[in-house]
Amino acid sequence: MRSVDIIGVGITNFGKHIETSLVELGGRVAIEAIKDAGIKPSQINAGFFANMQAANIFTDFTVGQNVFWQAGINSVPVFNIENACTSGSSAFNLAWMGVASGMYDIAIVVGAEKLVVPNLGLMQAGSTELDTLEGLVVPNAFAMRANLHMATYGTTKEQLAMVAVKNRRHAGLNPLAQFRSPITVEEVLNAPMIADPLTRLSCCPNADGAAAVVLCASDYSRQYTSRSVNVAASVLVTGSYENPCNMAQWDADRRASSIAYERAGLGPQDLDVVECHDAFTISEIVHYEGIGLCPEGEGGRLLESGATSLGGKIPVNPSGGLLSKGHPVAATAVAQIVEGVRQLRGEAGACQVEGAKVFMAECMGADKAGDIKSCTVNILQN
Amino acid sequence: MRSVDIIGVGITNFGKHIETSLVELGGRVAIEAIKDAGIKPSQINAGFFANMQAANIFTDFTVGQNVFWQAGINSVPVFNIENACTSGSSAFNLAWMGVASGMYDIAIVVGAEKLVVPNLGLMQAGSTELDTLEGLVVPNAFAMRANLHMATYGTTKEQLAMVAVKNRRHAGLNPLAQFRSPITVEEVLNAPMIADPLTRLSCCPNADGAAAVVLCASDYSRQYTSRSVNVAASVLVTGSYENPCNMAQWDADRRASSIAYERAGLGPQDLDVVECHDAFTISEIVHYEGIGLCPEGEGGRLLESGATSLGGKIPVNPSGGLLSKGHPVAATAVAQIVEGVRQLRGEAGACQVEGAKVFMAECMGADKAGDIKSCTVNILQN
Repeated sequence: MRSVDIIGVGITNFGKHIETSLVELGGRVAIEAIKDAGIKPSQINAGFFANMQAANIFTDFTVGQNVFWQAGINSVPVFNIENACTSGSSAFNLAWMGVASGMYDIAIVVGAEKLVVPNLGLMQAGSTELDTLEGLVVPNAFAMRANLHMATYGTTKEQLAMVAVKNRRHAGLNPLAQFRSPITVEEVLNAPMIADPLTRLSCCPNADGAAAVVLCASDYSRQYTSRSVNVAASVLVTGSYENPCNMAQWDADRRASSIAYERAGLGPQDLDVVECHDAFTISEIVHYEGIGLCPEGEGGRLLESGATSLGGKIPVNPSGGLLSKGHPVAATAVAQIVEGVRQLRGEAGACQVEGAKVFMAECMGADKAGDIKSCTVNILQN
Repeated sequence: MRSVDIIGVGITNFGKHIETSLVELGGRVAIEAIKDAGIKPSQINAGFFANMQAANIFTDFTVGQNVFWQAGINSVPVFNIENACTSGSSAFNLAWMGVASGMYDIAIVVGAEKLVVPNLGLMQAGSTELDTLEGLVVPNAFAMRANLHMATYGTTKEQLAMVAVKNRRHAGLNPLAQFRSPITVEEVLNAPMIADPLTRLSCCPNADGAAAVVLCASDYSRQYTSRSVNVAASVLVTGSYENPCNMAQWDADRRASSIAYERAGLGPQDLDVVECHDAFTISEIVHYEGIGLCPEGEGGRLLESGATSLGGKIPVNPSGGLLSKGHPVAATAVAQIVEGVRQLRGEAGACQVEGAKVFMAECMGADKAGDIKSCTVNILQN
């Protein structure tokens, strides 16, 4: 397997795109990423399109072919990929494999989603599973994790709330984020209760959005751009019904990140900046522990110390994360990678982590019952 | 890229599986293919699951993770793939790339679909396209192709009907096919009209079903089985809005098959048996021409000559094809490959083409307007 670089990125703001179709959103970021890469559409050998909800909401299929056609990409192989919240990073993993294997020299990944529509069915993932039929839906499942984490490790409700406060503060620096006004711990705690201890401000909002990256064999990337970023590791693991002995930890995070660290020849101490899947406040804290930013059970205290804020030792979710940007499902994990590329290029604007050289994107996909199905870890380096 | 073999296959009958869930159908064929391969589930390095309609019909996601979990496969990467009618062969193409690249030594592909349900939305593919909003749905689009083929090349309604008659005759030999009673040209012509000249017996029926294959690097396949079959070529091309100057031909067939022939070092004259995507009677005739079984415009006459019947020079759809088996969308293209493996192993029972050494599976995915989105050609050899 050969070395692979990211040579171009594109992204929309996350929020309401009422008058823009899914295909238009995807086409727009594809064109932006191709321009950013300094290539022509005809140089792209394969397209990987990630989406979760188009079939459910719009009864639409083969969306990727239409998205890439808008960007002048036809004829070459196109695949439509779904893996819940990791749809985007699963498409990225396949595109990376395609280029790393030598099958393709240049590949494009687009993740796009429209959720701000009537009759939304997002919470249907895993809907035929017994536990979801019995009422265990995603916020409830994560609330149970939060309660267990508090009972087991002494994590506090205030620490949970501080995740939302930190990410909103970061979002204030990111013009593409959906919710940018600062919030306080008190506001998070006093927001309407969704599933105790998770209030409305503890749960990521819906959004429409799209993001794209262009991958290229490292041997050729300098031909096109001097701003390429290397993919040091791209890992996907599955974790159905895993680790039932401790629901307050995610074994999939540990497995995916340890494989990624090994492949990259790096460890958690080498990371300069991280984007992780903060679908709920508790998620970010558990991810800290899973990817090794701190020992098991210390996530709440790590957060409270300020280490994961911009300016801290290891900033997490400098973009504002899902909690402030919103979560256009299949766009989310591609957007994490776009943020990583911008950080490593020094182009992250007010969200910039000075001198960032190593970036990790962590993403996790759960079914309707909150059971982890898929976990991805991508490490970028320059 | 290294050589890849198929070492195991599994398949259900195609028809009504009212009391079996999608996950159960998929799990069943996964287990059958693993047993057939002579391996343990823990030896599988990645799973590729193809489905088109679960999100639309059941609002269900990450189905592949649940399917593979039923077969004892967890932890390793799992991907959910959709590419309309080529969903199964697109998953196969990705799995082949994964093994050929050295990323995985053994990978499994499952295609599964449940369509025999109320409120079916199958014809929604491409539903946001202008032409479909204006009423151009799949049978209409294929009827227009049939009329153009008749006007341009002298193909007759009787020749179209003979495709259905031939494939039904083949299905009579296949205990897994849905419709097995012989039909006559008159019965096809006199069946209720769907879109002139396509009657109900000219259009493939719905079905539930699932099929699986296990892929293994050729270097290791002999460890597990003496009945492996080599993948001589696996090709996927995209063809959105292509070839508008002649709607009675499919350029995607030509492009995919010519790439596949070149990679395999073979030509159409080397094929012993073919499964092609006979979603409508006209489809099979156009595919003959696209993959080079006869010159442009000669498909109807090739069919009428008997060359593509069992016992003829180049039998096509010995399994009964979509027209008689039914079309459980994402299972279809995997089932074609399963049929090919059985043919090359000499295990195809009454459908056997004696001494078959080279097999081609051709599949094509169209959107709701009948516009071709994706075309796959896989050549197997032993």
